[in-house]
Amino acid sequence: MMNVKKYKKGYYMPPYTDVSWAAKDCAEKAPTWCSVDLRDGNQALIIPMNLTEKIEFYKKLVQMGFKEIEVGFPAASETEYEFLRTLVEKDLIPDDVTVQVLTQARKHIIQRTFEALEGVKNAIVHVYNSTSAAQRTQVFHKSKEEIKQIAVEGAALLKELTDRNGSKYRFEYSPESFTGTEPEYALEVCNAVLNVWKPASDRKAIINLPSTVQMSMPHVYASQIAYMSQHLNYRDNIVLSLHPHNDRGCGVADAELGLLAGAERIEGTLFGNGERTGNVDIVTIALNMYAMGIDPGLDFSNMPELIEVYERVTRMNVPPRQPYAGQLVFAAFSGSHQDAIAKGMKYHADTCQKQWSVPYLLIDPEDLGRHYDADVIRINSQSGQGGVGYVMEQQYGVCMPKKMREDFSYFVKEISDHKHRELKPEDMYHIFVQHYVNIISPFQLEDFSLKKEETKWYGQIVLMVNGKKTILEGSGNGQLDAVSNAICSTYGIHIYNLVYNEHDLDSGSNSRGMAYFGLTYDDRKTAWGVGVDTDIITASVIAFISAVNQMEGIKEKVKFCQKREAAYEKDIYKDGIAQH
Amino acid sequence: MMNVKKYKKGYYMPPYTDVSWAAKDCAEKAPTWCSVDLRDGNQALIIPMNLTEKIEFYKKLVQMGFKEIEVGFPAASETEYEFLRTLVEKDLIPDDVTVQVLTQARKHIIQRTFEALEGVKNAIVHVYNSTSAAQRTQVFHKSKEEIKQIAVEGAALLKELTDRNGSKYRFEYSPESFTGTEPEYALEVCNAVLNVWKPASDRKAIINLPSTVQMSMPHVYASQIAYMSQHLNYRDNIVLSLHPHNDRGCGVADAELGLLAGAERIEGTLFGNGERTGNVDIVTIALNMYAMGIDPGLDFSNMPELIEVYERVTRMNVPPRQPYAGQLVFAAFSGSHQDAIAKGMKYHADTCQKQWSVPYLLIDPEDLGRHYDADVIRINSQSGQGGVGYVMEQQYGVCMPKKMREDFSYFVKEISDHKHRELKPEDMYHIFVQHYVNIISPFQLEDFSLKKEETKWYGQIVLMVNGKKTILEGSGNGQLDAVSNAICSTYGIHIYNLVYNEHDLDSGSNSRGMAYFGLTYDDRKTAWGVGVDTDIITASVIAFISAVNQMEGIKEKVKFCQKREAAYEKDIYKDGIAQH
Repeated sequence: MMNVKKYKKGYYMPPYTDVSWAAKDCAEKAPTWCSVDLRDGNQALIIPMNLTEKIEFYKKLVQMGFKEIEVGFPAASETEYEFLRTLVEKDLIPDDVTVQVLTQARKHIIQRTFEALEGVKNAIVHVYNSTSAAQRTQVFHKSKEEIKQIAVEGAALLKELTDRNGSKYRFEYSPESFTGTEPEYALEVCNAVLNVWKPASDRKAIINLPSTVQMSMPHVYASQIAYMSQHLNYRDNIVLSLHPHNDRGCGVADAELGLLAGAERIEGTLFGNGERTGNVDIVTIALNMYAMGIDPGLDFSNMPELIEVYERVTRMNVPPRQPYAGQLVFAAFSGSHQDAIAKGMKYHADTCQKQWSVPYLLIDPEDLGRHYDADVIRINSQSGQGGVGYVMEQQYGVCMPKKMREDFSYFVKEISDHKHRELKPEDMYHIFVQHYVNIISPFQLEDFSLKKEETKWYGQIVLMVNGKKTILEGSGNGQLDAVSNAICSTYGIHIYNLVYNEHDLDSGSNSRGMAYFGLTYDDRKTAWGVGVDTDIITASVIAFISAVNQMEGIKEKVKFCQKREAAYEKDIYKDGIAQH
Repeated sequence: MMNVKKYKKGYYMPPYTDVSWAAKDCAEKAPTWCSVDLRDGNQALIIPMNLTEKIEFYKKLVQMGFKEIEVGFPAASETEYEFLRTLVEKDLIPDDVTVQVLTQARKHIIQRTFEALEGVKNAIVHVYNSTSAAQRTQVFHKSKEEIKQIAVEGAALLKELTDRNGSKYRFEYSPESFTGTEPEYALEVCNAVLNVWKPASDRKAIINLPSTVQMSMPHVYASQIAYMSQHLNYRDNIVLSLHPHNDRGCGVADAELGLLAGAERIEGTLFGNGERTGNVDIVTIALNMYAMGIDPGLDFSNMPELIEVYERVTRMNVPPRQPYAGQLVFAAFSGSHQDAIAKGMKYHADTCQKQWSVPYLLIDPEDLGRHYDADVIRINSQSGQGGVGYVMEQQYGVCMPKKMREDFSYFVKEISDHKHRELKPEDMYHIFVQHYVNIISPFQLEDFSLKKEETKWYGQIVLMVNGKKTILEGSGNGQLDAVSNAICSTYGIHIYNLVYNEHDLDSGSNSRGMAYFGLTYDDRKTAWGVGVDTDIITASVIAFISAVNQMEGIKEKVKFCQKREAAYEKDIYKDGIAQH
C-alpha cells in the first residue's frame, strides 16, 4: 500500500548552492572512463561471470579503448584473484591500461591484494567505507568521528603498506553512499584521507563520489559535486570521479551535470548493468558526446558485436529502447516519421551534407555498424507511404510513383493490421510482386510487335484471354499509345488519366528496367501494374496489361466481350453453313 | 564507422540562459499527468494494440488515476475511431477524465474528429506541426513564415469549427520537434497560435513543448522551457506541458528540470514505451516524487499486476533494471548491501521508524505490492552471510547464531559458485536441512531420559551407533551438560567451546522449537548441528548429536571405539568360558 507520509528527502544540500556550472551547455571533452563492469556490474548478475567470460569481456573493454578497468576484489575470492593473475600471467594488460582493484583497509587483505597485483605496471587501489547518515546509525552504530577514523586508518594503512612494498600504485577513495551523506561531512572525510595520502601531480589520487543510491534530482547532485570540487584539498593533484547509479532514472544526467560541475572521470558500465537499477551507462554518455561532435575516445563502431558479447557473458539483455543500442532506437513505425527520415536521407544524399541532421535520428545508425534496412524504417499498421516507399526503394530498388506508394501502403497496412504483426521488407516485396507485377488474368501477353510508319506507331499484340489466343491491333502516337489503343478499343475500356514511370532496376548492360502504369478508369478509380524486363518497352507493355488486369470488373467485361464475339462467330459460322 | 566530425550540436540556446530554476531542489507538487500510451506509445509497438487490448489498457490508466489520456488520432484510421466511439458508447469515460485526440488541421479531418468525440464531456483537441530547422529545410521546404502560417491557419480552423460546432473542447498546440527549433521562433509560433485562440482562465490552452528528439543536456532543455514560460502570451491561461523523449537517456531529467523551470504538465507513458528510445516514463517521475514525500496522485500499489497488463497488451517487456518496476531493482546480491539492508530493516522494526531510510532501498518495495522475500535479498556466489541469514530468518524463521551464519553462507556460496546459478530461498533451506538438521550418522538418537538428584542432572541416552544399540550414561550441572558428558566421555571427544541457541519456530501451544549447537573441537574447528522438536530439550539433544555427527573424523573415532569395545567384550566372554 502506498503511503507518501513514510518518505522525506534523503539527501543533504551543500551549505550553499552553486549553479554556475549550468551556464555551460555541454562538456568540452570526454572524461576518463573507468569500466566497473567486471566488479559492480558482475556482482549484480543473477549468475556472475566465470573466468573465461570475464577474460572475454575484459578484452572487449580494452579493444573499445577503456584505459581504466576495475577488475574486481582480488582478496575477496579465489575466482577474482585468479582472474587478475590470469591477466598478468597471460600478459593481457597493455602498457597504457590501468587495472583497478577494490580492497578493504585491512592488513592481510591489502597484502593479498598486492600479491594479486604482482607484475602489474599500472594499478589503482580503491578503498571505501560507507559514510551516510543512515548507515552510520543503522549499520555501523558509529559516530561521524569514528566513521572518519575508519577512512583515515584505512588510508594510512594502504599508504604504509604500499610504501613498504615499494610499489607506485595510485590510490582511490570513495565515501560510499555519498548521496546520503552530509556534504560538509563527506568533504571532511575526503580531506582527512587526502591529508594522509598527500597526492602529488605525478601520482594523483582519485576521489570518487558515488550516487550509490540516487536520492535527489540531478542538478542537486551537480551542486554537491561543485561544492566538493571547490573545497577538496590538493585539488590540482586529484582526479574527481563520479560513480552514478540509476535509481531515479537519472544516472546519465547525474554524470553529465556532474562533469560540468567539476568532475573529470566517470565510473560506469556498458548498457548500465549494475546493482538494482544499474550503474550509469557509459555507452549513452559517450555517444551523447559523440552526437555533439565531442570525441568520446571509445569505439562503438560494431555495436551489434558488442551487444552479442555483452548479452552472452552477462546473461542480461540490452532492452529494445536502450539509447543507441536497443533494437528499436532507430526504428520509425509512424508514417510522418518515416516520411521525414526518407526525405532527410534524400536531402543529405542530394546535397552531399557533411553534417548529420536527419530528422528523428540523433546519429547515423551506420556509425554503430547498424543498417537502415533492418533497423530504421519498420512497417506495421501505423506506418505510412513514406516509410513503405523508402524500404522498397532502399531494399529492392523499387521507386513507385507517389500515387502508387499510397495505393501500395494501403495494402501493406491492411495486411499488417489483419495479420496483427510487423511486416519485414521481404513480406512487402512479396505483396508488391503478387499484387502488381506481371498480372496475367484475364490478359496474358504472348507476344507483341510495333512498327512506325511515318509519324504513327502500329502495334500487334498476341494475348491469351481466358485460355483463348487473341490477336489485337491498334495505332497511336507512341509505342505504348498503340498498345493501349489496341486493348482499350477492343474491350471498351476508357482511361481518364494515366501515370507512367520507368527506371533501371540493376546497373550494367544486362540491366532490367521496371515500368509502372497507373490507369484511372470508371468512377475515377486507378489500377496499378508493374512490368520487369531487360527491354523497357516489353516491361512497359507488361505493366500496362498488368494494370488493366487489376481493373475492377475487368474479368466480367472480357467475358461479356468474348460471349458477344462467340455469338458473332457462331452467326458467321451459321451463315457459312447456310451459304454452303 | 565512427566519424565525430559529422556531428555538431543540433539544438539552439535561448537568447539568454536563465538557471534560476536550479535554486529549487525539487518540485513542490505533482504535475498534471497526461498518458500518451494509447497514441505515441501504441504507434511505436511492433504490433500495435487491438481494440480489446486498448480498452483494457485505458481502464487501467483510469484506475491508476490518470485524468488526461490521449486516446489516439480518431480521424486517421477506423480502429482509432472505433476505439473512441467504444469509450463513449460503453460509458467508459468518467466525468473527471479528459480524453485527448490528435488531429491535423484540415477541415474534413477536424470534422471527422468531432464526430468521434460526439457525447464526450471533456476533450482536448491536440494540433501540431513540425517547426524544426531540419524539417523546414529537408521535409517541408518552407520558410519560417510559411511554417508559422500552417500553425496559425490550423489553429484558426480548429477554433472556427469548434465555435460553429458549439463544443467547449480545450485546445493543445505542439511545435513538434521543439528541441530542434530556435527558441525565439518556437515562441513566435506558439504566441501566434495563442493570439488566435485567446485562451481564458476557464478554458486554458495547452502549449506542449516536446523534446521529440532529445538533443541537449537536460539543463539546456530546462533553460529553453524557462524562456518559453517567461514569454508566452496569456501565460496565466496556459497550461505549459512537456513531452520528453529519451534519446539521450535523460527523459526523466528533462521532465523534472522542466517542471522546475515552469512547466505544469507531463505527457508520457508507462515504463517509457514510445517511439525509438521511448517517451518519458511517468512511473519513474511519479515515484521519484513519492520517494521525496510528494503525492504523485497516481496509484502504483499493485505494480506486479500493472506490469502484467502492460506486458501482455503491448508485447513489450519491462526491463529488469527499469527504475521501481524492473525485477532486479530492489535486489541485493552483494554481501555488504545485504547486510546493510538486513540491519536497516531490523533497525526500522526495532525503533518503529515511521520515516523510511533503509540503506540501498530508495522506497519500500511493499508499497508497490512487491515482497522482500522474492525481490530484495537474492543469493549468488557474491552474497554474504547477512543476506543469507536474512532470507533464512524472513522465509523460514531460522535465526542462526552469527558464527553459524558464516559457516552456512560459505556452503551456500560454494554451491552457487559450483552450480553457477542463483539460489532460491527453497534451495538454501534444502541445503540447511541436509547439512545441519537431525544428522543421524554415526549417532542416531533412539531415546533419552533425564533426572535431577539434588543439584546434579543424570542422563541416559539410547543411541543406534553403526546399527548397534548403545546405552550411554552421564551427569552434569544441567540437562544438556549431562547429555554432552555421556557422549563425550564415552567417545573421547574434547569440546573447547560451545555455542548454544534456541527459539520458537512457530507460535501457539503446539509450537516447535529449534535448537542450535556449535561445538569447537580438535584444532579449534567448529561443527554445527540443529534439532527441531515440540520439546525444546529433545530439540537440543538432537542438535547436540547432529553437531557431534558433523565433526571431522567422528566416524573413524566411533569405529575405533567400537572395535576396542568389541575386543574388550570378546575378552570378557573368553574369560567367562575359561571360568566355567
